[in-house]
Amino acid sequence: MELEFVKLHGLGNDFVFANDLDESIDLTKDQVAWLCDRHFGIGGDGVILVRPAKAEGCDAYMHYINSDGTLAQMCGNGVRCFAKYLVDEGIVEATGHLVAETLAGPRSIDYAVDESGKLVEATVMMGEPILTPASVPTNLSATATTGFGVDFVKDCAVDSPWGPFVFTCVSMGNPHAVTFIEDFSTLPDELFSDPADKRLETLVLDKIGAFFESHAAFPQKTNVEFAVVGPDAIAMRVFERGCGETLACGTGACATSVAACLTGRAGCENDVALRGGVLHIRWDDDAKVYMTGTATEAFRGIVALPDQPRR
Amino acid sequence: MELEFVKLHGLGNDFVFANDLDESIDLTKDQVAWLCDRHFGIGGDGVILVRPAKAEGCDAYMHYINSDGTLAQMCGNGVRCFAKYLVDEGIVEATGHLVAETLAGPRSIDYAVDESGKLVEATVMMGEPILTPASVPTNLSATATTGFGVDFVKDCAVDSPWGPFVFTCVSMGNPHAVTFIEDFSTLPDELFSDPADKRLETLVLDKIGAFFESHAAFPQKTNVEFAVVGPDAIAMRVFERGCGETLACGTGACATSVAACLTGRAGCENDVALRGGVLHIRWDDDAKVYMTGTATEAFRGIVALPDQPRR
Repeated sequence: MELEFVKLHGLGNDFVFANDLDESIDLTKDQVAWLCDRHFGIGGDGVILVRPAKAEGCDAYMHYINSDGTLAQMCGNGVRCFAKYLVDEGIVEATGHLVAETLAGPRSIDYAVDESGKLVEATVMMGEPILTPASVPTNLSATATTGFGVDFVKDCAVDSPWGPFVFTCVSMGNPHAVTFIEDFSTLPDELFSDPADKRLETLVLDKIGAFFESHAAFPQKTNVEFAVVGPDAIAMRVFERGCGETLACGTGACATSVAACLTGRAGCENDVALRGGVLHIRWDDDAKVYMTGTATEAFRGIVALPDQPRR
Repeated sequence: MELEFVKLHGLGNDFVFANDLDESIDLTKDQVAWLCDRHFGIGGDGVILVRPAKAEGCDAYMHYINSDGTLAQMCGNGVRCFAKYLVDEGIVEATGHLVAETLAGPRSIDYAVDESGKLVEATVMMGEPILTPASVPTNLSATATTGFGVDFVKDCAVDSPWGPFVFTCVSMGNPHAVTFIEDFSTLPDELFSDPADKRLETLVLDKIGAFFESHAAFPQKTNVEFAVVGPDAIAMRVFERGCGETLACGTGACATSVAACLTGRAGCENDVALRGGVLHIRWDDDAKVYMTGTATEAFRGIVALPDQPRR
């Protein structure tokens, strides 16, 4: 089968997009894995098929398949790219607003276009943060109460082979455990690629991330964010549940900005600098979180999809 | 600048190809890095531009640029893909034979096509192995002499923090140190991802590969091959000089097959199974090494190449 595709990314979080408005594309798990393979296939963090919306008021349905063939609910970087695909391919009129239907429900998106009418930046409503420990979910006990009366886990110490780390727990539909690191010099040498230069950039995330990801405090595992609050932005690295460190995680940036606000480290509107770029996160008066960031076309092409991919 | 490209790979060793027969493509180092970036660009181990041959009797010149922007001399996997590009794009007539001009000199290639005339497999003359220690180069002393009277380094022990490894040294235009491992159980636990299951597949190559790559015995550093001679094939993993473990290394497969022959572990014609697939290596009576393997098109497309790529 020949497949026309566009490769799009949000901060390096990249996806193979194809137009499936006639719902004719039926990919096997092996074909998805092959499409996402960076040496043998096209390469991507997932495949997103654009299908007709079923729900009232939505412009199109985002059928998002992870590289292992499982369905994904939603993805902040993916949904900005989804908006770009709809606008740039002329599937929707460029009114500056659209609604994407996802497995996690409809997502309202505002966007800006350049002089040629291509989408350059989009703002996505990411929903309300969930703070109640049992709903995050986390087994840690609430240690504080928000101004609007919700108990939450604030700077709660969890022990590890490298000493205790303090976590604030936020769900954005998926669980996040955010740790703000104030003093890197107190952390053990083995956690850094260069122990003479201890900072967020030299922190080695793989072991420590995997440790907290699967810690008993998090019954559905957790995404883990390591963050530093600076004068202009929150710097952050993320260990994503089930896949390890990534260049960018939209819900992780939202959770980190919310956690910084909840713990009094920052205001409710922040630039969050991830490895792959910057996201602007606003926790609005309507209690919802809005994320603004770029969506970029890398290239477009055509692929002869193998029936039985070799790997 | 818009660039039409084809992504080809040999055993997962992948390249962005473009037709530059009119010599109009001039890529900056940043643009090459962007093209090879697997999240922000197209993704590849290098970029190969097809340019007119300057040398007599050659069909085209393979202008091969590494992902860091430096020029590469030759690449066994790349040159098979180069042949496929020339044949499949109709740049040469599909006679079953062509000559690629490379920085390392002309490379004669025989190939087979499928029913649609597309190249599926190619045999490349990889030159004569260089065995004289000073020419490999290695500081290790020769410990044996070949049947044709050349002194070479045969199974010479080099110490390491994980105990001694015995190396046979072969240059295929670039230096290779090949170690055949007979008993994995004697190697320390820390060298394996799963110490309860010690075998070539669970060996962790990064530290041990880097150690030997930069060992004083190898004045120009070295590629390091870890190999096991089986009844039907030689299994092998490679730590490539300057880039770490890769899925496949054509010259490494040649060096390993030659080393197996020289040390009496195998004949002069072997299948070599790398992580990315199998290469057939024949050390012929003319003293030259011939490598046969697949070349595969992954996809093709068009890219708007940024003047100043962000990363």
